[in-house]
Amino acid sequence: MAIQQKLSLMIPGPTPVPEKVLQALGKHPIGHRSKEFQDIVESTSKNLQWLHQTQNDVLTITGSGTAAMEAGIINTLSKGDKVICGENGKFGERWVKVAKEFGLEVIKIESKWGTPLNPEEFKKVLEEDKQKEIKAVILTHSETSTGVINDLEKISTYIRAHKTALSIIDCVTSLGACNVPVDQWQLDIVASGSQKGYMIPPGLSFISMSKKAWEAAEKSNLPKFYLNLKSYKKSLSSNSNPYTPAVNLVFALDESLKMMREEGLVNIFLRHNKHKLAMSNAMKTLNLELFADEKYLSPAITAIKTGEMDAEEFRKTIKNKFDILLAGGQDHLKGKIFRVGHLGYVNDRDIITVISAISNTLLNLGKINPQDAGEALLVASRYLEGK
Amino acid sequence: MAIQQKLSLMIPGPTPVPEKVLQALGKHPIGHRSKEFQDIVESTSKNLQWLHQTQNDVLTITGSGTAAMEAGIINTLSKGDKVICGENGKFGERWVKVAKEFGLEVIKIESKWGTPLNPEEFKKVLEEDKQKEIKAVILTHSETSTGVINDLEKISTYIRAHKTALSIIDCVTSLGACNVPVDQWQLDIVASGSQKGYMIPPGLSFISMSKKAWEAAEKSNLPKFYLNLKSYKKSLSSNSNPYTPAVNLVFALDESLKMMREEGLVNIFLRHNKHKLAMSNAMKTLNLELFADEKYLSPAITAIKTGEMDAEEFRKTIKNKFDILLAGGQDHLKGKIFRVGHLGYVNDRDIITVISAISNTLLNLGKINPQDAGEALLVASRYLEGK
Repeated sequence: MAIQQKLSLMIPGPTPVPEKVLQALGKHPIGHRSKEFQDIVESTSKNLQWLHQTQNDVLTITGSGTAAMEAGIINTLSKGDKVICGENGKFGERWVKVAKEFGLEVIKIESKWGTPLNPEEFKKVLEEDKQKEIKAVILTHSETSTGVINDLEKISTYIRAHKTALSIIDCVTSLGACNVPVDQWQLDIVASGSQKGYMIPPGLSFISMSKKAWEAAEKSNLPKFYLNLKSYKKSLSSNSNPYTPAVNLVFALDESLKMMREEGLVNIFLRHNKHKLAMSNAMKTLNLELFADEKYLSPAITAIKTGEMDAEEFRKTIKNKFDILLAGGQDHLKGKIFRVGHLGYVNDRDIITVISAISNTLLNLGKINPQDAGEALLVASRYLEGK
Repeated sequence: MAIQQKLSLMIPGPTPVPEKVLQALGKHPIGHRSKEFQDIVESTSKNLQWLHQTQNDVLTITGSGTAAMEAGIINTLSKGDKVICGENGKFGERWVKVAKEFGLEVIKIESKWGTPLNPEEFKKVLEEDKQKEIKAVILTHSETSTGVINDLEKISTYIRAHKTALSIIDCVTSLGACNVPVDQWQLDIVASGSQKGYMIPPGLSFISMSKKAWEAAEKSNLPKFYLNLKSYKKSLSSNSNPYTPAVNLVFALDESLKMMREEGLVNIFLRHNKHKLAMSNAMKTLNLELFADEKYLSPAITAIKTGEMDAEEFRKTIKNKFDILLAGGQDHLKGKIFRVGHLGYVNDRDIITVISAISNTLLNLGKINPQDAGEALLVASRYLEGK
């Protein structure tokens, strides 16, 4: 069968998109300076604040999640500023690169890929900084490359206690999947991307900016133009954009945020949580080992070790036989793990389907027996039913 | 009637999008690291080179045309570099701002809004630069704010004669509307945007980079990450992207480029040229004055003075009565001119329709008589039929 005829996307982005949202996407564009478009921007802005559980400005950028994270960094910091970067996966690594590119002095707090960052290390470094030289703490909430969620709630308390440092958080695969109460946790800068929990195709990214972040922006001396957030803030006050935005993706965003409001935050988080539990426990029942520390499983993605099997071959088999796209391991994990995305527009059927496809492949390889396959489905069912 | 029910977009972007392209846009997304997507990127890359008439790399960025222009500037220049900026409209002004933001030393060559830049002034400044201190010439080919096209062909000969300076050209509303032979004119950096001649919604921008531009990129010391074009070049060698691209807009791009190849470059340019002539001559027949110097009319947009009439009221009337969206004047031109876009997916019917709507409004205001309205249509017809 040809491309896209019946593809099931089970990767951490792009994630599946509802028909309603695709229909909104496929509408004829309208003028981005028109009253009609301003009304849509007003609606998305309010719903973005709802999703972020914040009164802060939430800005929409045409660009990837990386653009939003870079914007957060270059709008609030200055050359030579000292920052902490948490690094326990590919995205953590990326923010270190961005920070260094812009001449920041990076203190790395690392943890082995697959394990969470240790909040106490943040506490220690922040408490020792009596001169308040640390200007920001940059870290990834859900580390997509490994399936680990970092304890942002705890780390954010230590950042707040420091008082000077801003929090700059990559919530690209956590926002819209689990609780990220921006105001309650007093997160200063939160970046996310459209092709994730938002249930729309890639092309937009979002950045929430606290009052403290805007104050820091007044002092920032790093050069920027397209990603200068002050222009976005100024435009947003009249429900507009500084440069031509991806109008059709904004139509899609408006539709998807309405669907999310209809489902409700708590239900969205519960759904992701039960999918995470069903998926991870079913994998264990199939004698597969989870890559991530089981106490810190991401709500968005489950990373699974394949032991002696080549993970790339395994996922190719599943793609060819069932047209289900799984993600591979990145960098040194290539061939060693595969990753199942359960982020965004994913229902219980998608979960039992991917478990069945994995079981089927393992059965064909003689790695499990029918009893195991049945048990995996039973385990999954229990979690899906919330028992 | 409600929003979008039968909107006709006659602004310089977003421009009208063909149904086929909207259908491609509204497809379910696929994985951006999949073979299927790589095949699409391979196809769009080749067709982008065809459109640019170049063997140079043409990179696709998720972002607006401003992002592409900024990328061209920050990837090839270094702090303190001397550059010439041509300024005869809002976009020319913008590139001066970008250059200054990144610490470049700007020599401005200006011309009054509505008039073209004088190529001889570029010649003079470039010839006087015996020390070869000028590293780039930055200018806008088609100045969307005024409807003027600058004589890029001639200016580019003077840039080439200088030998050191790179050309960094905003072709956002000229590429795909009139001849921009990148290799023949040896243009180093050419930026453009999806919602223009490309006939797709906003969200993607494009940048063509010559060998000389890549050599300059090796020496550039301005900080950048999301817009670091070396990452895009590296990914493109495997038909990929450094960050998650706007997958659905790339589907749309693939479809629209195929449509453009079917029509053929010469036919596309002829179509835009006859629409420009029909539009501008019909306006004169209606006793309206063109804002731009008639020898330098942009193929993409016609700017029209309204004299004593408020141009904003005029275009509101046309929007309310006929659901045709025209563009207003920007900055000091607000209320003084309106602008008719005839860029991208525009046919002869669109041209006679907008002329009729303008005529109708002028008739109702008692500004013209039926004879004038009829004459305007006749003049337009002659140009549309190529007589």
